[in-house]
Amino acid sequence: MKSVGTVKTEYFTFAQSPNELKLESGQSLGPITLAYETYGALNQEKSNAILVLHALSGDAHAAGFHEGAEDPGWWDDLIGPGKALDTLKYFVICPNIIGGCRGSTGPSSVNPKTGKPYGLSFPLITISDMVKAQKHLIDHLGIKKLLSVIGGSMGGMQALQWVASYPKHVQSAIPIATALKHSPQQIAFDEVGRQAVMADPAWNNGNYYDATKPERGLAVARMIGHITYMSDKSMEEKFSRKLKAKNFSFEFTTDFEVEGYLRYRGDNFVKRFDANSYLYITKAMDYFDLSADKLIPKERNSDLRFLVLAFKSDWLYPAYQSQEIARQLKVRGVDATYCEINSTYGHDAFLLEVEEETHLIKHFLDKTFRGYTIAR
Amino acid sequence: MKSVGTVKTEYFTFAQSPNELKLESGQSLGPITLAYETYGALNQEKSNAILVLHALSGDAHAAGFHEGAEDPGWWDDLIGPGKALDTLKYFVICPNIIGGCRGSTGPSSVNPKTGKPYGLSFPLITISDMVKAQKHLIDHLGIKKLLSVIGGSMGGMQALQWVASYPKHVQSAIPIATALKHSPQQIAFDEVGRQAVMADPAWNNGNYYDATKPERGLAVARMIGHITYMSDKSMEEKFSRKLKAKNFSFEFTTDFEVEGYLRYRGDNFVKRFDANSYLYITKAMDYFDLSADKLIPKERNSDLRFLVLAFKSDWLYPAYQSQEIARQLKVRGVDATYCEINSTYGHDAFLLEVEEETHLIKHFLDKTFRGYTIAR
Repeated sequence: MKSVGTVKTEYFTFAQSPNELKLESGQSLGPITLAYETYGALNQEKSNAILVLHALSGDAHAAGFHEGAEDPGWWDDLIGPGKALDTLKYFVICPNIIGGCRGSTGPSSVNPKTGKPYGLSFPLITISDMVKAQKHLIDHLGIKKLLSVIGGSMGGMQALQWVASYPKHVQSAIPIATALKHSPQQIAFDEVGRQAVMADPAWNNGNYYDATKPERGLAVARMIGHITYMSDKSMEEKFSRKLKAKNFSFEFTTDFEVEGYLRYRGDNFVKRFDANSYLYITKAMDYFDLSADKLIPKERNSDLRFLVLAFKSDWLYPAYQSQEIARQLKVRGVDATYCEINSTYGHDAFLLEVEEETHLIKHFLDKTFRGYTIAR
Repeated sequence: MKSVGTVKTEYFTFAQSPNELKLESGQSLGPITLAYETYGALNQEKSNAILVLHALSGDAHAAGFHEGAEDPGWWDDLIGPGKALDTLKYFVICPNIIGGCRGSTGPSSVNPKTGKPYGLSFPLITISDMVKAQKHLIDHLGIKKLLSVIGGSMGGMQALQWVASYPKHVQSAIPIATALKHSPQQIAFDEVGRQAVMADPAWNNGNYYDATKPERGLAVARMIGHITYMSDKSMEEKFSRKLKAKNFSFEFTTDFEVEGYLRYRGDNFVKRFDANSYLYITKAMDYFDLSADKLIPKERNSDLRFLVLAFKSDWLYPAYQSQEIARQLKVRGVDATYCEINSTYGHDAFLLEVEEETHLIKHFLDKTFRGYTIAR
């Protein structure tokens, strides 16, 4: 498969004083910078734009390669010439969320009013706030209506929120491995991750930017996360009870390969992620709730189309949650297709089940684009 | 239901120098004290003894009330006059495991050689070491053969280990919600718990007995545990998305009831449990492996009977692991009954599904006891 090649992250700044972004909490935030990348070209009619939304630890770099980098963006398998999000046909935009730490304004950004990083003085943001900021970017790019909004996990929440917040500005949505709201189990996993970060004395109530970072706490949070992203079966297939050495150490070192994997993933994560962002983003997910008919407003765009994807072995965002999305759409008479992909990868499947996803998404987008073009 | 009434923990000390207990690691441990309780009376033939084995955070106090205490022992619902383990008929013994912190010798015990708590100089112990120590207690009580060994979770591992280590000294076994070995997912959850403890600077490589204890780290470990003990459904039934206050706080406080529950459970646990014991015990569970025909030795006791219990919603010790126990027994021609109890409580079900368990266990023990008595 071909790649979009070398790409560069771009930045868009808005919500300058006194036009700060009004947040769901009642607080304001500004100025706001959004880091984003685009792939492919916007057509004359500006009718081929697809917004890709990332998950908890994702960023704007979804496809192609940064200058000199070995690894491509996080969804490179699905974005590029001839791929599911075909950059020969579509203009793909991927923004980093506000509250994050990968170029967009978040708790680790410098507050222009104080000249210091926000830390916990950064206001709590919600999924709807993230989407509100993205709407500014879409306006800035001159796009009236997005052909599609797509994302997995928290990216799926943003896709759903786009429909709820801006139904007239979205032609279709592809929420993958996501939910209308977090269950208490999902909240519980997030809360334990937050507690792990906040239990680290280096966290220091969020003031650590000029000191030691709460790396141990954040690593523990990430390790918990990784267990929930895989399935019992995929862990069995990948690690079984394989040992790192020939025998048990009879010490508190890494005996099992799965332990080494978790430690490696935890240690790696802290190098690229801000602990406060972890708190803000998980809280935004926990607050998210589009159940009880909040997804589709009554004056909805009647030609809105949905492709709802779930994965059989995903126990973090179980298929019943995607079925509930589909059910709510059907009740409102919305054109929605629900597919449950047979995968053993667990929640990670949305990043790994490339072939199956490509098939479904490509077909869905083609049909949406054809319909959209004819309708115009 | 009647209670066994007021009970007292007893203590048995053995493995005095130079007769230390030889451990699986090759190291030795001694002297060893086992805290234990007994309920009911041993009959003349010493044929009515049942050994109850506890799980990770359990202790010797399985039934009745300590002087002045409001809460009964951890399995009081199943142990007492007329209950599943009927103390009018049976003599019930419950020892605290070695490595623990509830009266038996563990890392928080004083090492007589140094006059200081062992800390990490305590040798790593295995489930088979725990059982080896229990065998000394059973010998001390003059019991040649146990009518049954019973336990849930890690208690079930010990029950299985009794069969593997001392097949001629066990008449029957009731392993509940347990496994022949931990899967990589189970190891992963344990490892993250250990990492949470060890990430706490107060842990100080296990030397904290005369200083601040690693309470925050241990609380995080316990919170992770609690999520795995419940099911998605039981959390939904118990908490749903109920809030503590009327609205979201838009702060990092406890918004959801499930968060409050986890914090409460975590904070409560650290008051009664030693962080080092948490490390030692989880490691013992991870090392445990009676798969590949290690459960039933070839020269097995031919009249050994098994009742294997699992719970449908238990995703920490999924039913397939209990089915694997039953399968291994059937292959060896052992008299084994497997029952999967329809419960929504998750792993906690072994403590909560009293009625169903009582019915199955009572009947099984009656039959075992009758057969045993006739055979003699």
